[in-house]
This record gives sequence, structure tokens and C-alpha cells, in this order.
Amino acid sequence: MMMQLPPPPYYAVIFTSKNPHPTEAYQQLATEMVELAEQQPGYLSHESYRNADGAGCTISYWTTTEAIKNWKNHSDHQIAQKMGKEQFYEEYIVRIAKVERQYTFST
Amino acid sequence: MMMQLPPPPYYAVIFTSKNPHPTEAYQQLATEMVELAEQQPGYLSHESYRNADGAGCTISYWTTTEAIKNWKNHSDHQIAQKMGKEQFYEEYIVRIAKVERQYTFST
Repeated sequence: MMMQLPPPPYYAVIFTSKNPHPTEAYQQLATEMVELAEQQPGYLSHESYRNADGAGCTISYWTTTEAIKNWKNHSDHQIAQKMGKEQFYEEYIVRIAKVERQYTFST
Repeated sequence: MMMQLPPPPYYAVIFTSKNPHPTEAYQQLATEMVELAEQQPGYLSHESYRNADGAGCTISYWTTTEAIKNWKNHSDHQIAQKMGKEQFYEEYIVRIAKVERQYTFST
């Protein structure tokens, strides 16, 4: 079953990245950051995808932009962001988006 | 190089789906729909991801909600949506989100 979320509006952080060779250190840091994010006020859920060519996408969902800002500024997350730039990612784009509508389908 | 988009605001359609066994017919239809979407007014770009377990995500970017609505109602796309429900997807969620801010990083 896919994750169901509360009715909109809520917020999505769309993080698309290029990391052609994810290392064990990267995987470990990514896992730690997910576990930490899940404990933050306003966190709703997240989902991660990676294609064979190294293109990846993580979308996290949050109640408010304030919650996203607090998570962005979390000290451990700041360190992880720095490591991401210096060691892991070739490039990335972060988009903050307000989910205005949603439609679900299931068999 | 990842796709660069115009400064926000613009819109994202986040389509997350479960299709554990993508068939050739599915792949062909998906390709046709991408080619058709690219020709629509207001289309900006798209990106697709699929994990090994069949969880997939396609995000398309559009200038306005009007453009998204027109694409949703396009006759060929309507047929594809019907086939998706009847033949391909176990479940899916479509989210319409307004991109309010973006940050980019590249090495």
C-alpha cells in the first residue's frame, strides 16, 4: 500500500540528484538523515527512487514551510548537506512545492 | 547536466505509482505519452524513476495549472489513463504542486 497523506494543502521537498556511484558511506548517511527527518516536527513521509544511471529523487512531505526550514537548518542535517556537496553529489536541485490537490487510485 | 527550469513559480505533477511488472505494452504507452506531453502548451520538462521493486515516480513540470488541466483532458491521454487503471497500475497517487522555491548545486 502506498503512503496516504492528509488532504492538501501540505508541502513537498523534491530533491533530484546525480550520484553515479553511491558509496557505503553515502548510503549510511542517507539512512541516518531519513531516520532523523522522521523525528522532526511537521514531517509527514518520504519516498526515494534511483535509476541505474545514478539519477535519484527523494520526495519528502511536510505540514508547513516552517517545518521544512527547521529541518534544513538542523545542525546534523547541515553537516550532511556539506558532505553531500563535497563528497557525494555531482549536482542536485531542491524544489519546495505546495501540494494543492491529489488524486489516488488503487485496485 | 540536470534539467534547469525557469525561476519559480511553476507547477509540478508528482505521479507516484506501483507497477511491479512493467510490460512492453506499458513501456510503449509511457513513451508515447511522454512524446505527446512534450508537445503540449505549457510543458516544461519531466523526469522518471523506477526502483527494483516496481515503485515508480514521474514528475512533470508545467507553467500553469491550466496547462496541466488541458493535458489531463487530452483525448489520447484520457485513453492512456483508462488503460493505466485497467491494465497497468496496482495503485497510484497524482499530486499537483506549486513550486515556490528552488536551489541548485553542481560541481
